[in-house]
Amino acid sequence: MTLLKDIASMIDGILVGDGNLKISNICTIQKSTSGSIAFFYNEKYSNYLALSKASAIIATKKDFIKNDGIIVKSPQLALIKVLKHFKINTPMQRGVHNSAVIGKNVTIEKNVNIGPFTVLEDNVKIKSGSTIGSNCFVGYGTTIGVNTKIMSSVNIYSLVKIGSNCIIHSGSVIGADGYGFYTHNDMHHKIPQNGKVNVGNDVEIGANCTIDRGTIDNTFIGDMCKFDNGVQIGHNVEIGKGCLLTAHVTIAGSSKIGDFCIFGGQSGAIDHVTIGDRAIFACYTVAMKNLPGGKTYSGSPAREIKEKNRRDATFTEVKILKNKIKKFELEYLNK
Amino acid sequence: MTLLKDIASMIDGILVGDGNLKISNICTIQKSTSGSIAFFYNEKYSNYLALSKASAIIATKKDFIKNDGIIVKSPQLALIKVLKHFKINTPMQRGVHNSAVIGKNVTIEKNVNIGPFTVLEDNVKIKSGSTIGSNCFVGYGTTIGVNTKIMSSVNIYSLVKIGSNCIIHSGSVIGADGYGFYTHNDMHHKIPQNGKVNVGNDVEIGANCTIDRGTIDNTFIGDMCKFDNGVQIGHNVEIGKGCLLTAHVTIAGSSKIGDFCIFGGQSGAIDHVTIGDRAIFACYTVAMKNLPGGKTYSGSPAREIKEKNRRDATFTEVKILKNKIKKFELEYLNK
Amino acid sequence: MTLLKDIASMIDGILVGDGNLKISNICTIQKSTSGSIAFFYNEKYSNYLALSKASAIIATKKDFIKNDGIIVKSPQLALIKVLKHFKINTPMQRGVHNSAVIGKNVTIEKNVNIGPFTVLEDNVKIKSGSTIGSNCFVGYGTTIGVNTKIMSSVNIYSLVKIGSNCIIHSGSVIGADGYGFYTHNDMHHKIPQNGKVNVGNDVEIGANCTIDRGTIDNTFIGDMCKFDNGVQIGHNVEIGKGCLLTAHVTIAGSSKIGDFCIFGGQSGAIDHVTIGDRAIFACYTVAMKNLPGGKTYSGSPAREIKEKNRRDATFTEVKILKNKIKKFELEYLNK
Repeated sequence: MTLLKDIASMIDGILVGDGNLKISNICTIQKSTSGSIAFFYNEKYSNYLALSKASAIIATKKDFIKNDGIIVKSPQLALIKVLKHFKINTPMQRGVHNSAVIGKNVTIEKNVNIGPFTVLEDNVKIKSGSTIGSNCFVGYGTTIGVNTKIMSSVNIYSLVKIGSNCIIHSGSVIGADGYGFYTHNDMHHKIPQNGKVNVGNDVEIGANCTIDRGTIDNTFIGDMCKFDNGVQIGHNVEIGKGCLLTAHVTIAGSSKIGDFCIFGGQSGAIDHVTIGDRAIFACYTVAMKNLPGGKTYSGSPAREIKEKNRRDATFTEVKILKNKIKKFELEYLNK
Repeated sequence: MTLLKDIASMIDGILVGDGNLKISNICTIQKSTSGSIAFFYNEKYSNYLALSKASAIIATKKDFIKNDGIIVKSPQLALIKVLKHFKINTPMQRGVHNSAVIGKNVTIEKNVNIGPFTVLEDNVKIKSGSTIGSNCFVGYGTTIGVNTKIMSSVNIYSLVKIGSNCIIHSGSVIGADGYGFYTHNDMHHKIPQNGKVNVGNDVEIGANCTIDRGTIDNTFIGDMCKFDNGVQIGHNVEIGKGCLLTAHVTIAGSSKIGDFCIFGGQSGAIDHVTIGDRAIFACYTVAMKNLPGGKTYSGSPAREIKEKNRRDATFTEVKILKNKIKKFELEYLNK
Repeated sequence: MTLLKDIASMIDGILVGDGNLKISNICTIQKSTSGSIAFFYNEKYSNYLALSKASAIIATKKDFIKNDGIIVKSPQLALIKVLKHFKINTPMQRGVHNSAVIGKNVTIEKNVNIGPFTVLEDNVKIKSGSTIGSNCFVGYGTTIGVNTKIMSSVNIYSLVKIGSNCIIHSGSVIGADGYGFYTHNDMHHKIPQNGKVNVGNDVEIGANCTIDRGTIDNTFIGDMCKFDNGVQIGHNVEIGKGCLLTAHVTIAGSSKIGDFCIFGGQSGAIDHVTIGDRAIFACYTVAMKNLPGGKTYSGSPAREIKEKNRRDATFTEVKILKNKIKKFELEYLNK
């Protein structure tokens, strides 16, 4: 239970109504419940606001607050604070579980948690404040930065560097061999993958992602990249900082993605292409050549969205042409 | 070894020929083997029937049975019974393996099996008859229903509800954080994901699937949904009952899928769309807006299949128009 | 440190310059470093060659070697040898870790390594020289061939056969149930999946792949197939020998893929199609019917690349037709 006035102070908002109102949780405006506080910042949901059972409303204008609530300038930043406040903190493994297998010459700094059935190979380094879940594997010589949180069943191969303040969700595999074969006389010879993977700081990697190690040089994931589930990064890819890659995106080997690019679901890039900063790719779009940044692309192959729309309009244009030609035929040919 | 007459009785069929014939296994009509029984219900395979080495045939008509066999009304339901009968039952972990790590206040009902190296956090509840494989993680406060079977290396985060009679295959991750960030001045702020995941009864989830938890409200998977491998469900998605999602389908955040929808391989829906009941999506099709149920869609963006085919016909129409215009040019312009 | 002359002898090359030069690593021509040796075989990178800091160059012609280096006929095969030579060999688990759970009647041949927290069910057979990583599951009656390397967190269900000299990366799931349901009166009845999976020799399977077991007959992966990450193979699929399946390829149930086919990223085939030998599919291409081998396909549905390009040219052709018709209108209709 939190008093409304305490929430107002937590989010630097202006209190409206009864500051001593007790709030037990956060709810959405669409599925509001009594005792909870709801955010209202999308006028699309105005009809829900009228019917809301929420005990209090956080909004940008007083008009949206029937009885009790809080006025804020940035509801999104306030939302983050209120969600954090009401998040159920589940107790976690403290310290190194006695079942964990720790190799030789492993450095485990202070305030590190290692879950049950996790294996750290020789020369691994886990910096202070980081947590590794259960059933993980951290390969030879891999380093995990400060305050990074690795969930259960994450597999990180040898000689990988993970930055600080990262989150890696369950089932992700980092540092597996890049896909490299030399085919000669119908024999596929495996090209050893000697490169590494460097993941920057503040990176979040979703569940069941795969990021391959480089062949000679390394694979790089820039600071503050955020990956959804099932993202696949080929060997020697370089992703700039702050990129958002949503579910099932695949970036093929040796491609270079600029800073702050956005890839929609199941989109991707073929190998050896370079994409400029702040390029946006709609879902299921495939970059098949070098593309400048600052633009929005769609389709397979990826084209600027205007060009894509012009092409999609062909269908309608052909209909118009058919009618015109029919007219010609009636007026001239059949005379 | 099972006698043919016992199989006939098992599937409520009419025995043809020698009821004491010994049957050791089931085979297909295409790769039939002596001593086995084959089903014949697709006339496409008639030529295989003539050459069949199967010792007995199960079919809907006596004509298809050369010597010995069984006549049934529904060969598909009979097939399920015969497959169950001949399935090799592999011995499984009985009870709770002594290596499993069980938190405080965990409820384990009767006839529950927990495999080696599995972690159940505090307040987990596993209902009667359920089995959890090896190397699994079940997070704080999560509940698993009655007679549910969870294979090895499944990761279920905190506060998830899994129904009864479900099957979850290896490598699936349920309840990882939804993909939510608020970007402000080139900073991506993580939006805490306080919601949960509720999976209904009789649901099967394939290998390496990912189902994210909601932000405030929950993610819902309806009763009797069947997911193939690598299916991805974003946060706050609601999937109706009885939906069939085949391999690598991705449903983006907050979309609502009706009952009994079918999604072909690699198809999906973008975020915040609503799909009616019994909509069918061909493989690699993407729902990009609200779409009514009861129809079949194809393409990216998803269009009704007739409309899609009309559009695909543009290529041929343009060829016809070119010829007509050439005729005009010859007859009028060049005169 | 390796002497240049020893590298020359290792790769059967002709030494140029100082054979006693000490080489500490391999580097690329683009990111060359002093003390390292670089390969030069793509003239696209000529400008890098001029600026190279590499201490020695391996090339096909003496002209490309400024001071010290090695001339070879096949730089690709030489590259593989040099990469192997400089690869950091991380120490691995030796023998069977004492935490591994080994069932009854399990055969473990000589020189086998089994990592911590791995479960081998009854009747498993691991042949000589093979390594199973940590946190793996190998189901009842499954056989692993000679010198096969299975990384951590791999799940192999019962009765699967994996050949010799294979590599399986973390998170892959082999032998999960095929996706088979019989729908009757809005009830989805599970069809038991009694078939098995047979994986040939010299196969590499990337991270987080899924290969389902067959329904009655088996799923087959031919010798020397190489799968990238996230590849999905449905039940009863048969993949010929030497196929290259790149990231996130999905082959649906019962399809038969010939020998030496290549599938680009996110491409695939629908169920029950047959693809001839040496067919090539561009990324995001979908085989929707039987297709002959020896050709290159693109698009969804997959069409021969020439046909695909003709169709893509429709847009330009319609523009030309529009101009011609405008001319008609000006000359005839508006007179």
